[in-house]
Parts: sequence; structure tokens; C-alpha cells
Amino acid sequence: MSDALLIRNGRPMGGKPSDILIRNGVITEIAETISAPDATIEDVAGDLVLPGLVEAHAHLDKSLWGMGWRPNDAGPRLIDKIDNERHLKRAINIDPARQSARQVVLSVGHGTTHIRSHVDVDTDHGMWGIEGVMATRAAYADIVDMDIVAFPQSGLLRRPGTLALMDQALKEGADVVGGIDPCAIDRDPKGHLDAIFGLAQKYGRPLDIHLHEQGEMGAFSFDLIFERTRALGMHGKVVVSHAFCLGAPDRDLVDPMIEQLAELDIGIMTTGPAGRPAPPVKRLLEAGIRVCSGSDGIRDTWGPYGNADMLERVMFVGLRNNFRRDEEVELAFQVCTIGGAAVMRLDNYGLKVGARADLMVVAGETITHAAVARPLRRLVVKHGRVVARYGSCVRTSP
Amino acid sequence: MSDALLIRNGRPMGGKPSDILIRNGVITEIAETISAPDATIEDVAGDLVLPGLVEAHAHLDKSLWGMGWRPNDAGPRLIDKIDNERHLKRAINIDPARQSARQVVLSVGHGTTHIRSHVDVDTDHGMWGIEGVMATRAAYADIVDMDIVAFPQSGLLRRPGTLALMDQALKEGADVVGGIDPCAIDRDPKGHLDAIFGLAQKYGRPLDIHLHEQGEMGAFSFDLIFERTRALGMHGKVVVSHAFCLGAPDRDLVDPMIEQLAELDIGIMTTGPAGRPAPPVKRLLEAGIRVCSGSDGIRDTWGPYGNADMLERVMFVGLRNNFRRDEEVELAFQVCTIGGAAVMRLDNYGLKVGARADLMVVAGETITHAAVARPLRRLVVKHGRVVARYGSCVRTSP
Repeated sequence: MSDALLIRNGRPMGGKPSDILIRNGVITEIAETISAPDATIEDVAGDLVLPGLVEAHAHLDKSLWGMGWRPNDAGPRLIDKIDNERHLKRAINIDPARQSARQVVLSVGHGTTHIRSHVDVDTDHGMWGIEGVMATRAAYADIVDMDIVAFPQSGLLRRPGTLALMDQALKEGADVVGGIDPCAIDRDPKGHLDAIFGLAQKYGRPLDIHLHEQGEMGAFSFDLIFERTRALGMHGKVVVSHAFCLGAPDRDLVDPMIEQLAELDIGIMTTGPAGRPAPPVKRLLEAGIRVCSGSDGIRDTWGPYGNADMLERVMFVGLRNNFRRDEEVELAFQVCTIGGAAVMRLDNYGLKVGARADLMVVAGETITHAAVARPLRRLVVKHGRVVARYGSCVRTSP
Repeated sequence: MSDALLIRNGRPMGGKPSDILIRNGVITEIAETISAPDATIEDVAGDLVLPGLVEAHAHLDKSLWGMGWRPNDAGPRLIDKIDNERHLKRAINIDPARQSARQVVLSVGHGTTHIRSHVDVDTDHGMWGIEGVMATRAAYADIVDMDIVAFPQSGLLRRPGTLALMDQALKEGADVVGGIDPCAIDRDPKGHLDAIFGLAQKYGRPLDIHLHEQGEMGAFSFDLIFERTRALGMHGKVVVSHAFCLGAPDRDLVDPMIEQLAELDIGIMTTGPAGRPAPPVKRLLEAGIRVCSGSDGIRDTWGPYGNADMLERVMFVGLRNNFRRDEEVELAFQVCTIGGAAVMRLDNYGLKVGARADLMVVAGETITHAAVARPLRRLVVKHGRVVARYGSCVRTSP
């Protein structure tokens, strides 16, 4: 039997009804009517056909999804949450292999076809996270593509031994070098950034740095990141996640940062956080900066929110940026699709002939309509195969 | 046949499994096991039983729900949206009776048992809104209780004739006197506030004032509201909706306002807006201030968001206020239930013996779990009768 798939009567990007033919995992034709007698037909009755969602910032190793409800009683500071989590991992057995598998199945059900996951590396747990998520990546390669970021959640230099573990994680198969708050968490911005840029140079890997630091402190860390990106010729190889300091009201602080982000082709990840300053998505896009989004942690020891639905994330990014016109909400959708693809440097992404057939089908009159209504995804297609139907994934998790 | 209803095996407020007996629309007993041979039994299999949600700030008269998707192309300013909407009302026939009926049915499906709706009063449309929503209130009195606020959306003094229409709306049956941005919209803060406080005095009605004004301008309008509330002895009779200026970072500006809100028992309504400064819910509650929430406009000419689900609103209020601990998320739930009841001065509200049987049943291990997962409501009970089941209301709308 042929592996050809014919999606009949869909509306690509909300346009006019079309058929989409997929062969060998690639979109081979998009036309008003396509005949392909050997193909399996999926008639989607006028629903939207959209590119697969890109979850560009997850923490697959540590959701509590499926572990029963655990009331959150972590303290208010970032470091309280970090220490609380590191302790609980063993205490309640937050197994990274099991939990990442659960979140992958959940994500794919929502139409996500690509995930970048930060994965904790620390001296208490060593490679537990990296190896667990790598096992999930291998076991679920048929339904999702995954980038793994080696992430020093508990700090790098303040906990000696972590740098060697980061090195090991990259040797074992992590794709991206992570970092976190060079001032506020690691207390040694020069040391932290020299170390992670050093690793990136040693292994020829890109960087994705968590930066929660606000105001002048965040701008200072950004300055140090700019210097190193420029000096090492790492244009286009650096992403900064959260980047709350870009949400400061002072344009004299923020505008020069935006200029340098554009010059150095540094990508920005924002979840559209309601309770924090947030990067101004429209201004970043207008400056030509790659902007992506992600669920961040979902239902974990940090907090109870989240369901890994990146179409719901479009709504959050839209609400945070006060996007009201449809063309504005579509910017948030771009962030959660082609923005993520640009940050993850995905080849052949998108809803076009010649691209890989990673897509979803969802009810809605327009993209904005789907983003605010967030209905179950009718179909999710990965590598040209149906991998989820009405929210149910073809794969199960432990 | 008896009208008794026995909810078996529910967990009131997430506590231990209990039965709840309802007779004549009133909760008559809550106990581990209740025998009531004459009662209709609903076994809810360990789900949560919670008080009905209170939608304390809706605009029932002007949602586009069910009217097909209409791309939003309103301009960026508040006044652009106001003028755009007033024009479109007739142009596309946003019929207040029809649209309010649709939203009531939607709201009740989500577990809302009480609604306060602002309803536009302006010189283009006269009593169209008030009469339409009053018709819905009468027609759907079996499934929801409703407060109607006569709301001068387009301004009061800047559009001569509006004040006389407001007077008429109160005569015809509106319950509450509305107001809007005395400076920014009406351009005459003294005139605007004297007029609406005057109406409140004339008819002995409470006030609910939209205040979007930020920073010093908002604080100035608040000052004028405080003066009038105090001078007229209207303690406990005034609500300010949105109150973005309470979200200013300057504690020297905000703290004195909070003190006066407490002294004058002025209630605050916040939607938990992600893209605007927002009243600090925890600090307000700690000061003893009544705080409620609402959906505000849903899918209307102002923007595409919203679905009238006040359990989802708990999540928005939680996210906006960075509530992460379960006890914090429960504050947001309080705002959407007893907070609304306190603002609307509902008698006999709550999940207790002697209270009116207005409640919902929803899956979840705890209140916070239900708020972040937002599953379909298993049952909604109003006046002791089942009015919705798994999101479907027993009533339909045009």
C-alpha cells in the first residue's frame, strides 16, 4: 500500500478550499482538486490546515503531568523554586523519561510537531534528565522532532561540577548549550557567560540562555551576551529566552538592545507572561528579529498552569501584547509556528510544496478564530502520517 | 413528584466526599450520607462541588457570538473602538436581545449562576440595549440571575441627550448606574461624576464605574470618586471596574488609594488583563476590599478573545497576579465566586446549608486543579434545578 495521504477539502492558512497531497512525508501538491487513487483520503470538510505548531521552549523533563495533584507550596523567589524542585525530583520521583514521554504525547495531540526542550543538568541528578529525554526523543521520533538544550537550572559556577556535566551532556547528544541568569542566579556574569560560550565554541553548538533578569541588570547581562556573540562571530547562533528586561517601559534602555539583537541575529523566546514584563513582540518582528514562543514549564513544581497547547499559547501571546486586530493575532500565530522554525533552524518547514508534511487541521473560519476558540485538533500529521485525531495521539505514554 | 435533588458523592470545595440535599431551591443538608427517597439523585462520582461562578462584569448586549467570524480592524485608541462599535451595531445588526440570550446560555453552560452586565445607553441606539437585555433577563430567569448596569459607553456629557436616556433606563428597570473614564472619555470629570452620582442618589441605586485611566489621571478620577462617595454616604455602594491605575508600580500613588477603597468599602473588578496594569488582587484582599472579576466583552468589536468561562477567568486572574501556590490560586477562585457575590450583594450565596442551591460540579482533585484544567462542567444547578450538563445548557438561544 502507498504511503500517500490526500487531505481533501482543507483551507490552507484559512484560504480557499484545497486538496493537499503528501508523498514520502513531503507535501507534493496543493491544488483545488487533486486525484491520487493510491492515496489514503482524509476529508476535513473545510477546516483550516495550518503548519505544525513549534514548541520552542519546553521543560519536558519535569512536568508533574499524570502524577496526581500536588499542591504547590514553593517560596516566592526564583531560587526557592529551583531548590524546591531539585529536592522534590528524587523525593517524589519526577522521572524525566516518563514525564517527557507524557508531555510529548500531550503536545502532539495539540498539533505540535517540533519541540525544543531545556533539560536540567545539575550535580544532584547528573545525566538523569538528559538521558531520560534522549530516550523519549528516540522512542517518539515518529511523532515529533526534538532539540535538547543542556540547561544548568541550578546554576553553573555556583555549584562546582556542573560545567563538567554540561560538557558531558553535549558529548552524549544534547544539541544546544543552555544558560541562566548570569547575575541573579550564578552571581558571576563574566564567568557564567565565558563558560557557556566556551562550550558552544568547543562543540560548535548554538546557545539558548534563560534570562529572567529585569531592568538594568538584564540589560547588563544582554550587553555581555552581545559582546561575546560579536567577538566570537556567533551571529544567528544565540537565543535569549524570556528576556523580561525587553519589556521595560524605558525606551532608552530597550531600543538599543533591539538594535543589537537585530544586528547579531539573536532570537527571542517569549511565553507572553501575564504577570511579568514581556518583550514587545510587534516591535521585535518589525526590527526583523526571530521571535518564538513556548509553554515553558507545565504543571510542575514551579506552578500549576499550562497544558502544552501552543494554539492556546497564541492566545496568551496575543493577550499579553494587546493584539486585537486579526492581523495582529496572526503575528502571535507566526511566532508559534514559523518563528519557532526560524529559531530552531528547521529545514523545509511550512505549508508549501516541497516542505515536510508536518501540519495540523483544526476547525475555524480564520487563524484568529481558531486561536481564540482553541478547539480539539481534528488531525495532526507528522512526517506525512496522521499522528493524532481530535486530541488523541496514536502513541501512548507510560 | 418532589423537586428535591440529591447530589451524591461530591466533594464540596474539594473536601471529603459528601451528599448534598436540595429542597425548594435551597441547600438543606450536607452530610457524608443522606437518604432522601423522594429526591432525584445525581451521583457525581467524587467530582468537586463548587458554588456557582459569578460573572460580575459582562457586556451581554454586544458579543458577536454566533454571528460568523468578523475580522477586527478597529483603530488603536479606546475612542476608535467605541465609535467603531456604535457604527457597527446597526450596520451588522448586533441585536442585544439575541446576543445576550446567546451569551447567557454559553455562560450558564460554564457554571455561571449570576451575571452583572453593563449595557450600552447612547443617543444612537437609545433603549435598544437595555430593553433587549431586560427581555433576556425575563426569558432566562430560570437559569441565571442578572444585574443590569445602564452604561454610557460612548460618553455621557460629550453626547448630549445621553443623561436623559440613562435616567429612562433606570426608570425602565436597570439596577445599577454605570459610568466611564470621567477624564479620558467624557473630558469633564466633575460633570460626569456629579451626573452619575446624582442619578444614583435620585433612584437609590449603586454605581459601577469603568475606569481605564492609568497613572496620575486614574488616581485623580479615583480622588473625585472618593470625595463623592464620602460626601453622599455611599459607602459600600460603589464599584470601580478595571481600575488599571491601581496597577501602577508607584506604591506612593497606589497605597493611599487602597486605604480609601477600604475605608469607603468600594469594590474593585479586575479581569486580570495580561496587557495592561492590573489591580494587585492579593493586596486588595488583604486590605479587606471586595474584589470581583468578569469576562468583560467576549468576541466583540473590541477584540476576538473570550468565551464567558469564569473558571478560565480564575486562571487569567491567577496568571496576571503571578499566583503559583494553590492557596494563591484559590484567592482568584474566591474573586470569581464570593467576591462577585459580595460586590453584587447576593443574599444566601455559597455552598452551605440555608444558601440558595446555585452550584456547579466539575472534575478535579482540588479547586486549583479544576481552574488550570478547565474541564467541561459536569453539572450546573440553578435554583435547585439542573440547568446544564457537560457544557450543554437545558435552554437554547436564538
